[in-house]
Amino acid sequence: MVLKNRWYAAAWAHELDDKPLARVFLGEQVVLYRDGSGAPVALADRCRHRALPLSMGKVIGDQIECGYHGLRFAPSGACVAVPGQSKVSPGSSVRAYPMAERHGWIWIWMGDADGAKPEDIPDLYWHDGPDWLATGEILNVACNYMLLVDIQLDNTHATYVHPATLGSSTIQDTPPDVIRDGETIHVRRWMLDVAPPPIWALAGRFAGNVDRWILASFSPPSLCSFDIGAAEAGSGAQDGDRSRGVTMRTSHFITPETETTCHYFWLFARNYALDDGALSDKLHAGIAATFHEDVDIVEAQQRSMSARPGAVQIDVNADTPTIQTRRLMERLIAEEAI
Amino acid sequence: MVLKNRWYAAAWAHELDDKPLARVFLGEQVVLYRDGSGAPVALADRCRHRALPLSMGKVIGDQIECGYHGLRFAPSGACVAVPGQSKVSPGSSVRAYPMAERHGWIWIWMGDADGAKPEDIPDLYWHDGPDWLATGEILNVACNYMLLVDIQLDNTHATYVHPATLGSSTIQDTPPDVIRDGETIHVRRWMLDVAPPPIWALAGRFAGNVDRWILASFSPPSLCSFDIGAAEAGSGAQDGDRSRGVTMRTSHFITPETETTCHYFWLFARNYALDDGALSDKLHAGIAATFHEDVDIVEAQQRSMSARPGAVQIDVNADTPTIQTRRLMERLIAEEAI
Amino acid sequence: MVLKNRWYAAAWAHELDDKPLARVFLGEQVVLYRDGSGAPVALADRCRHRALPLSMGKVIGDQIECGYHGLRFAPSGACVAVPGQSKVSPGSSVRAYPMAERHGWIWIWMGDADGAKPEDIPDLYWHDGPDWLATGEILNVACNYMLLVDIQLDNTHATYVHPATLGSSTIQDTPPDVIRDGETIHVRRWMLDVAPPPIWALAGRFAGNVDRWILASFSPPSLCSFDIGAAEAGSGAQDGDRSRGVTMRTSHFITPETETTCHYFWLFARNYALDDGALSDKLHAGIAATFHEDVDIVEAQQRSMSARPGAVQIDVNADTPTIQTRRLMERLIAEEAI
Repeated sequence: MVLKNRWYAAAWAHELDDKPLARVFLGEQVVLYRDGSGAPVALADRCRHRALPLSMGKVIGDQIECGYHGLRFAPSGACVAVPGQSKVSPGSSVRAYPMAERHGWIWIWMGDADGAKPEDIPDLYWHDGPDWLATGEILNVACNYMLLVDIQLDNTHATYVHPATLGSSTIQDTPPDVIRDGETIHVRRWMLDVAPPPIWALAGRFAGNVDRWILASFSPPSLCSFDIGAAEAGSGAQDGDRSRGVTMRTSHFITPETETTCHYFWLFARNYALDDGALSDKLHAGIAATFHEDVDIVEAQQRSMSARPGAVQIDVNADTPTIQTRRLMERLIAEEAI
Repeated sequence: MVLKNRWYAAAWAHELDDKPLARVFLGEQVVLYRDGSGAPVALADRCRHRALPLSMGKVIGDQIECGYHGLRFAPSGACVAVPGQSKVSPGSSVRAYPMAERHGWIWIWMGDADGAKPEDIPDLYWHDGPDWLATGEILNVACNYMLLVDIQLDNTHATYVHPATLGSSTIQDTPPDVIRDGETIHVRRWMLDVAPPPIWALAGRFAGNVDRWILASFSPPSLCSFDIGAAEAGSGAQDGDRSRGVTMRTSHFITPETETTCHYFWLFARNYALDDGALSDKLHAGIAATFHEDVDIVEAQQRSMSARPGAVQIDVNADTPTIQTRRLMERLIAEEAI
Repeated sequence: MVLKNRWYAAAWAHELDDKPLARVFLGEQVVLYRDGSGAPVALADRCRHRALPLSMGKVIGDQIECGYHGLRFAPSGACVAVPGQSKVSPGSSVRAYPMAERHGWIWIWMGDADGAKPEDIPDLYWHDGPDWLATGEILNVACNYMLLVDIQLDNTHATYVHPATLGSSTIQDTPPDVIRDGETIHVRRWMLDVAPPPIWALAGRFAGNVDRWILASFSPPSLCSFDIGAAEAGSGAQDGDRSRGVTMRTSHFITPETETTCHYFWLFARNYALDDGALSDKLHAGIAATFHEDVDIVEAQQRSMSARPGAVQIDVNADTPTIQTRRLMERLIAEEAI
């Protein structure tokens, strides 16, 4: 039910140091740490000797030492020392996972190491680009990761899930264009020559109407990103000229933990009023509250589905993006299984 | 293991308003609310679209709106609106359960709707009759519902489970008459010309001896009711004249939630000293404490039985009422399964 | 996976009185109490009538009375009274377990009663001998009992698990002699003519070097005991003369509760400075902290093993004592199963 040969978000860069961090990805127990040079390391979190999680041990230089009998493992997973022995049998090594650090996140590759190419990590320039200011969280959420993907891609939920903040928009009245582009699914809404809602009026100091856009996309294995903004009506934003507008970006990376739990990384960035700390705090709080409302929904869905697995669901018009996404994922997962 | 084509207590009338109430009956997840006219409604608590519990949504007039994408359902279970669509496919409806409100309780029918006749709800006149004052609770109890039925029907437990309150009575020394009357099992104890215990002496201000009665009955699916009282010795109570006596009634309705949990509704009513608020408080506290002692027993039984399912039990003389009750229930359940 | 025809530690003597104590041994629910003479009694903790744990009842003289309907059971397990009946059917009795009290512990025999001979209880004279002062605990630990046996028998863990207290010793550099003696496995370390570590320097007020010993042994079903000490170098301790030395003893009895939990009895005794209460407090606190560190390790091991049962383990040189112990146990368990 998951793609293995893909990069997954594993941690925020600031979460990782020379203290072992235990985390489960795709059902596998992993210990994360930074080696002596600061590079991220991920190993199977289980000593080959007596099964103690290596995350209960300590990092010494590049290596991690088991907290029970002191076996040491290198970033390659090789067991390099067994106290009381001069030799180490080759079967003592543990699995090492390819790792990368990019755009403020630590990335892990859960499949065949041969396929791990850091250049395949998506370009999330708004995470750490010079014109952007970003903030975010990691949440452990008790649902299958695809339920969190679904809720990102179907914005018609805003009226019902976020009535206090996003509900009164014109989003519901504007069916999106759903466009398949290779392995990416785009869900695009343009609202032209409309009155700016308060948040955009404040952000862009618009005197009159605006052209608004909500451009969402899904990329396997589980990245949803949003490009949301407004520009002076008729100023050419739809043709690519955003010089008279403001933009927000969000990234949602949902890394499966187990079949019914996931790690939810969300990030919000903006390209305006970068020096306004009070605005930053206000936006972070408001956005976090909104995303936590999503979490309440998907966790309740999961409980309901677990109570009656396999119960038939009906589809509605608004499901087009999520249905296309699930079909794409099913095809990719089936291809990987061959 | 349960009868489906019966009325079950679902809620106290005062528990239900226009806020959705989630509750599980006979393993089925149900949402309860009152429609615009105040009538109770019960629907399957799972949107047909994406499985969100409808109880996370809100009641709008007669309808309930799903908290995820806004689908609306009528009291009949019919889906009457899907935002973004002009049509609603007929497969979108959810199950609706027949409901009734009577004697202070909301009743639900879990079987075939055709058989639901409100006149089959038992006449519990002491719940809300003019000469009566009633009080009670709903408790969620971690045992199979029949264990709570058992403990009602075998009063010999009082000496051991309720030594501080009921233990010193003459109940143990008076084997009951166990009488089968159609689908009802009566367990009757008459104690004639005996000294009144303190509670009755106080209630009836008796100068001398009394005739006492403890008349219990079981009616499917899981109602135990008690008629308990005392009258002046020889004043004709056993022949139906209670004019020189006082009576208490209790109702115990135990609605299965899962195989090993249930909703325990208990109600206590009296027909004397109706204006004595201090007495009401004292009686409620004492009776609640006693019934909570029962709960401790049946939950411990359930844990013990779950730890060793199928272990052989022996029967004793005092089990006559509970054995007859279980035989009746087994026969009715078998008949319903045909 | 366990030996049944053995004595197991069931409780500290001071834990048992005329209040029923519920405890699970080898997966069986047992109620413990002292009869009228103070002798320990153990019965199956489940009334034969309606399965209530007898531990919810009360002890009356030698007997225990069920807290539901008052059935009474003698220390033999025989049901001796059923309220409301003059006769008791013989099938009403519950299983009784042979018991003994020795060396400050209550012992239970979980196998065929015929084989229960109190003289087979090991001679743990340091628990209650006149020259000794003992202290200890019972801990409920969430691991298979053999993981706690393992950690006792492989002292190379001290450097990694107890770095603050035991880690800086010369233990790791001294491979032990592992000696099989009937059903006992000895793991012996002698360190001759070495500088005394602070704890021994303080205990024995040694002016110069010492001969140190760490003599561990395992006896089925799950007793690990340690004889640890130091004496003036060359004063003959290795030949049995400890007159110029000091000794500490520890006992670790690990009674299986379920497959993945156990009761861990530990006891520490010393034969010096018996009147020094401050030292007693300090030693108890330090030793308890050390053994709790062991518990953290074995519980993490169990979680790891339960997450991936059957994953292959490698062995290292230091595993000789634990491997021999597991082989012995496997052989004895196989023999018992015949």
